[in-house]
Amino acid sequence: MPSAALPDLILEPLIRAALMEDLGSYGDITTRTVIPQGTRYCARLNAREAAMVSGMQVAALAFRLVDSSLNITTHIGDGAPCAKGDLLMEIEGSAASILTGERVALNFAGRLSGIATKTAQLVAETKGTGARITCTRKTTPGLRIVEKQAVIHGGGFNHRYSLSDAILIKDNHIAAAGSVRAVLQATKAQVSHMMKVEIEVDRLDQLAEVLEEGGADVVLLDNMGPDLLREAVAMIDGRLVAEASGNVTAQTVAEIAATGVDYISSGALTHSYRTVDLGLDF
Amino acid sequence: MPSAALPDLILEPLIRAALMEDLGSYGDITTRTVIPQGTRYCARLNAREAAMVSGMQVAALAFRLVDSSLNITTHIGDGAPCAKGDLLMEIEGSAASILTGERVALNFAGRLSGIATKTAQLVAETKGTGARITCTRKTTPGLRIVEKQAVIHGGGFNHRYSLSDAILIKDNHIAAAGSVRAVLQATKAQVSHMMKVEIEVDRLDQLAEVLEEGGADVVLLDNMGPDLLREAVAMIDGRLVAEASGNVTAQTVAEIAATGVDYISSGALTHSYRTVDLGLDF
Amino acid sequence: MPSAALPDLILEPLIRAALMEDLGSYGDITTRTVIPQGTRYCARLNAREAAMVSGMQVAALAFRLVDSSLNITTHIGDGAPCAKGDLLMEIEGSAASILTGERVALNFAGRLSGIATKTAQLVAETKGTGARITCTRKTTPGLRIVEKQAVIHGGGFNHRYSLSDAILIKDNHIAAAGSVRAVLQATKAQVSHMMKVEIEVDRLDQLAEVLEEGGADVVLLDNMGPDLLREAVAMIDGRLVAEASGNVTAQTVAEIAATGVDYISSGALTHSYRTVDLGLDF
Amino acid sequence: MPSAALPDLILEPLIRAALMEDLGSYGDITTRTVIPQGTRYCARLNAREAAMVSGMQVAALAFRLVDSSLNITTHIGDGAPCAKGDLLMEIEGSAASILTGERVALNFAGRLSGIATKTAQLVAETKGTGARITCTRKTTPGLRIVEKQAVIHGGGFNHRYSLSDAILIKDNHIAAAGSVRAVLQATKAQVSHMMKVEIEVDRLDQLAEVLEEGGADVVLLDNMGPDLLREAVAMIDGRLVAEASGNVTAQTVAEIAATGVDYISSGALTHSYRTVDLGLDF
Amino acid sequence: MPSAALPDLILEPLIRAALMEDLGSYGDITTRTVIPQGTRYCARLNAREAAMVSGMQVAALAFRLVDSSLNITTHIGDGAPCAKGDLLMEIEGSAASILTGERVALNFAGRLSGIATKTAQLVAETKGTGARITCTRKTTPGLRIVEKQAVIHGGGFNHRYSLSDAILIKDNHIAAAGSVRAVLQATKAQVSHMMKVEIEVDRLDQLAEVLEEGGADVVLLDNMGPDLLREAVAMIDGRLVAEASGNVTAQTVAEIAATGVDYISSGALTHSYRTVDLGLDF
Amino acid sequence: MPSAALPDLILEPLIRAALMEDLGSYGDITTRTVIPQGTRYCARLNAREAAMVSGMQVAALAFRLVDSSLNITTHIGDGAPCAKGDLLMEIEGSAASILTGERVALNFAGRLSGIATKTAQLVAETKGTGARITCTRKTTPGLRIVEKQAVIHGGGFNHRYSLSDAILIKDNHIAAAGSVRAVLQATKAQVSHMMKVEIEVDRLDQLAEVLEEGGADVVLLDNMGPDLLREAVAMIDGRLVAEASGNVTAQTVAEIAATGVDYISSGALTHSYRTVDLGLDF
Repeated sequence: MPSAALPDLILEPLIRAALMEDLGSYGDITTRTVIPQGTRYCARLNAREAAMVSGMQVAALAFRLVDSSLNITTHIGDGAPCAKGDLLMEIEGSAASILTGERVALNFAGRLSGIATKTAQLVAETKGTGARITCTRKTTPGLRIVEKQAVIHGGGFNHRYSLSDAILIKDNHIAAAGSVRAVLQATKAQVSHMMKVEIEVDRLDQLAEVLEEGGADVVLLDNMGPDLLREAVAMIDGRLVAEASGNVTAQTVAEIAATGVDYISSGALTHSYRTVDLGLDF
Repeated sequence: MPSAALPDLILEPLIRAALMEDLGSYGDITTRTVIPQGTRYCARLNAREAAMVSGMQVAALAFRLVDSSLNITTHIGDGAPCAKGDLLMEIEGSAASILTGERVALNFAGRLSGIATKTAQLVAETKGTGARITCTRKTTPGLRIVEKQAVIHGGGFNHRYSLSDAILIKDNHIAAAGSVRAVLQATKAQVSHMMKVEIEVDRLDQLAEVLEEGGADVVLLDNMGPDLLREAVAMIDGRLVAEASGNVTAQTVAEIAATGVDYISSGALTHSYRTVDLGLDF
Repeated sequence: MPSAALPDLILEPLIRAALMEDLGSYGDITTRTVIPQGTRYCARLNAREAAMVSGMQVAALAFRLVDSSLNITTHIGDGAPCAKGDLLMEIEGSAASILTGERVALNFAGRLSGIATKTAQLVAETKGTGARITCTRKTTPGLRIVEKQAVIHGGGFNHRYSLSDAILIKDNHIAAAGSVRAVLQATKAQVSHMMKVEIEVDRLDQLAEVLEEGGADVVLLDNMGPDLLREAVAMIDGRLVAEASGNVTAQTVAEIAATGVDYISSGALTHSYRTVDLGLDF
Repeated sequence: MPSAALPDLILEPLIRAALMEDLGSYGDITTRTVIPQGTRYCARLNAREAAMVSGMQVAALAFRLVDSSLNITTHIGDGAPCAKGDLLMEIEGSAASILTGERVALNFAGRLSGIATKTAQLVAETKGTGARITCTRKTTPGLRIVEKQAVIHGGGFNHRYSLSDAILIKDNHIAAAGSVRAVLQATKAQVSHMMKVEIEVDRLDQLAEVLEEGGADVVLLDNMGPDLLREAVAMIDGRLVAEASGNVTAQTVAEIAATGVDYISSGALTHSYRTVDLGLDF
Repeated sequence: MPSAALPDLILEPLIRAALMEDLGSYGDITTRTVIPQGTRYCARLNAREAAMVSGMQVAALAFRLVDSSLNITTHIGDGAPCAKGDLLMEIEGSAASILTGERVALNFAGRLSGIATKTAQLVAETKGTGARITCTRKTTPGLRIVEKQAVIHGGGFNHRYSLSDAILIKDNHIAAAGSVRAVLQATKAQVSHMMKVEIEVDRLDQLAEVLEEGGADVVLLDNMGPDLLREAVAMIDGRLVAEASGNVTAQTVAEIAATGVDYISSGALTHSYRTVDLGLDF
Repeated sequence: MPSAALPDLILEPLIRAALMEDLGSYGDITTRTVIPQGTRYCARLNAREAAMVSGMQVAALAFRLVDSSLNITTHIGDGAPCAKGDLLMEIEGSAASILTGERVALNFAGRLSGIATKTAQLVAETKGTGARITCTRKTTPGLRIVEKQAVIHGGGFNHRYSLSDAILIKDNHIAAAGSVRAVLQATKAQVSHMMKVEIEVDRLDQLAEVLEEGGADVVLLDNMGPDLLREAVAMIDGRLVAEASGNVTAQTVAEIAATGVDYISSGALTHSYRTVDLGLDF
């Protein structure tokens, strides 16, 4: 969850696959047909609207995988804000290489900046409260690592990465196991000290049972209104981390944050953002 | 571009990778910890809003890859409309298997139905004209095959799949080659009979040069207003396929279609749709 | 960490790769040369010494990947003890298929049962105390998932799976960041609620600093003798999970457990076990 | 279809796989056993017969993947003719590396030059006519990209790359759909503007139906003799691209070209060429 | 080297890759567009010329990978001769599936039968002598396993599979090591008992040195005429396996075999065969 | 089997997979959180006990794959002995990179040095006899290449690499084929000159049958005591390579070697060694 760059080793397979998808069998057939050999460009990646930037590490890596001799200078890096018209990156070298990597770089960077920008909006709305904004597993299949990192670039925090990173007990699990108490007992018996346990509740009597039984680190207060959330926070009294979810929008998030919850999670951060308009100019 | 199902052979690697991403090292650790062995579910995949459905082939394949013994019945298939509350699919079998595949199935189906729905809106707006709606290469890295298919489920048509599937000459290419004439001559000399050639123009004098030189199958009329489009269509007079792009929205698309263009392309179909709210109920 | 079986989807790539390694270019050339087509075997996988069993799911999957028509019956499953001479599994079907899968199945099962058996010994030594036995990242490259699961089959618990699953602050990190306090502050600022934080200390004054600053869930008491451990446990007083490491052997583990620590971690569980002698008889 | 080099990104996986196949488990065990460490060679890749060269980009990449410190100079590149005895490439550096890459480089280059040479023969026979020589999908499994490119190095043109690149309607399809008219109507309704449509006919009445119905870009005149081809070309009168196939040999191709067809396709270009004799001398 | 079928596990990745290459992004777009859903075929794979059959296991696997519900009956299997017009295989089921797998199945089977047929010709020419026909590493990149197996289907034998399977000392190695004696001594010191050692000689004095020094199992008599070969065989006197290479054709092979050599190797078996004409009829 | 380094091309996929396993989704989250950007280390890889070194090529490659700008100096290379406290390797550069590669490098090097050390002990015990020490296929799944190489670093020799590298006829094969004679005849008819043939016997009458029938290169004398072995060696009289197996330990190996056998094989070399204690100090 730190904003330090991810190791390239992790990102390369994802970006290489995206390039292969876009290159197809023959590569950029138009460029190979009409661009004279040896043509060089200095391309500028510009923001066509204000945004929180993400995807610059990915874009640079895409260009480098196409052609390691390209000269790439990042002017505004991941996790920094940009204004409309700002120059984000310059890429200098073979025109054919730049044209070949262009669409993949933009497809990543526009989407990731979209996620960072949406996250930054919620973060701004909750400024001054103790609440942190966090994402969910509602990410685009195959892109989770870069989307989770984009949430961090926007000032947010990551929830569990995958199904195997933490326990998150939902209503189905409680139903199948019989009760909150039964599910927590099974968890305490089997789960080790290096894995967080979260349990979802939507009523205060469930919360009471969680507090009494113990064995959870985090409680997910799902679809409770502000009043109920405030009551829940009071009941918890610092013994668990309190996370709120449900009906989280730019309009509602400040009120939710004001209830004293520690985290507010939003699936829309990664499934319903708007792609930021970025363009490559030559 | 037909709406017939894609071969599973093509989809499997994509879906398997998405499952591995979500399973992580240990698989669904919560389910493995708290769901009693042998628990069976009959889960219902419901639409929580009206939509054009896409992603049902993908969702079914995701569940089958997790557990080939699941019984899956699709009630509303890809390319069909659904109303709020409609039952799309039933999945019966091991509770652990269903919970393990749930998120991946929903992450695909919600996004793909979003694309199909957005496409269907543009298609509806242009009904009665001869214009067809088409997408671009502004797809999510790694998901192009299913996103292109979702456009078809929405009633749209596909543009070239990758950089190697067709020639698309843009302003950069014309600039590098020297002129419209030069670029078309290079293309005619090198490109074979099984590859379409499209050239982008934004002025009528360029269009005249294209028509005079020959060698293109399709002309992309970029960012022309309705009046200019109408003039361009008249100049073309059926000798080329006319495609319009730029500023295509649900509000503008009918007016663009009325100019007589053959295709209207929109990047937003695949980069700025809204995920459809689908849910799995047990 | 539960002992429920891992999804086959996770294990298959590992086992398939092991089979390809052992098959080589031509497959089992001896069997293909000398075993008459159509020969059938009923093979028995026997324990040639007492052990805690692990690797039966893996062995069965190896045989099934070679030939899905083999009939496989597991008599003693993962996580159950066996005596010398016990029948663990029967495999009936094509002789060629059984001979082809034999070595891979045994190479996995012997090693994994070795890990489970070593774990079970430490677990037995600490019976009646509250201490749990746990492993480390000192696993065999490529086999972590099955080795971690073998620890569970032996009655142990898993530590973090990989570098990205939890924070574990060691002396190098403290040195680089400047102090225990500095490193915990950095962690609290960046790490989210779904990730455990552990910090290693080897002196009581460091422990005091950890308790005062907060921000850790687990403290690793490294290479402290029993007296110091007892003092540390008293200082911690239930506010953190206490894990002991260093000089953990079958001889010392009971004394360490008696100090009141919650977890005892041992790298030797996965790097210095003895392969259990299993054999396939025809 | 241009002769500009393919991106290395596309070729690398293919060449790496070929190297792994030839290296086997231990690499070049002979070289590792008997060549003294530090031995350096200057190897010369010579043509032992006249040919049209292809495979030099591939060969150079093979050597570079084995050892990026090798110095490689290409004297006669892909798409250029060579005489018997000509020096094509020099490779200077570690003897062990050169010996390790030798066979893979030669296995590619001999075959690809064979395809280019066979193509160049047909091209030479049709010189002065407007007919272009093109290949088919009868390529070696796994090598399509380099074989298609070798056809271009020989002066030929590529047909569709894969089943998904263009519509090619054959007799089976017509039979299944009911008529030429039915199949073309289905195609026009579903296929978009960026995909070529070709239809195979072997009688003039079928051709008349194609011309009347419209919806095809190219017609494949299969197994027609010169007289029938001439008649067909007259009927088509420039409204479709005319491609001839069947019984295409160095002996017949000039007569076929003289009928006025635009393209002549030959499966033998890629399935029945002769490997060119190339050798590496030290 | 036995003619028993290879394990499918080994062949699947190769065939799957070939199918993906031919399917491209969208699969068989023509079939998906024009073949009515539910159409079924009974296709017959026929030989259009006499041949030694190979590639039937591969073809059947290709069809099964496309659609596991196809009914496949092999009438003439790998390693059996066929006459012109013979029915080799029937495939019954979904028309779309059969059309999708057709080209890959034929591309493999035609080539592999070509290799088997060429091998069978050399085997027939040497009938009655003790000489066995063997191939080399001059195979098509990526297809070695099936090409080596095709040699066996033709009645031939395999040479070493890859660079790591056996020692084969050539003139370069002798030159680098200093002498035949030096190279054999290095080999004896390092090479274990499970690896064959072959050394190439082109003069009888070299052969004498090999016999004197020992340490080789096989001697490769390269480019010696029949008289010299006969002399060499006499010198060897059964102490080594004698392999002849160079200028091996259907015309020369009987004379070479008559010299008493044990093996005759030919690169042309796998690099210069003629594809057998096979066709799928509906 | 030479001790010359393996090609990096062969090792890279294995090491890359091990790094990905240990990095997990996010990489080294602790280091990314608390180590200040730009921190540099000079790390020393030290031996904490005397050993025969193996795994240095692998460790260096692991660090280079994480960060190609690290400066790595190997002081004691693979196949050389080290004393307790010896410096094996220095790694200088980015602290984050070194910490990220540390565990994978150590996990490999400790295990491989363990194998080399155990091998060297058996080699030392048999010094002065003609017997060579060799391993088996009882290697860790996925690690065979580096474990086999570690045996060489310890002064041992490799047995066949995989099931396809040599014929090894065991009791099951003899039983299925009917007799020693039958199995050898099948082998001679099918197996080519470049593949070694070994047959296992446990009685002298079987050995006599092997010698009489011919067709084997090596005989495996399984579980015979020293007296029987001596008798067998006398019977063989140099006509076959004699390999002894069964009950091979540091205590028994000298006595076995003294019987005159050529090779002594031990599965324990790769399945029951002790990991050598290596550490990285900063």
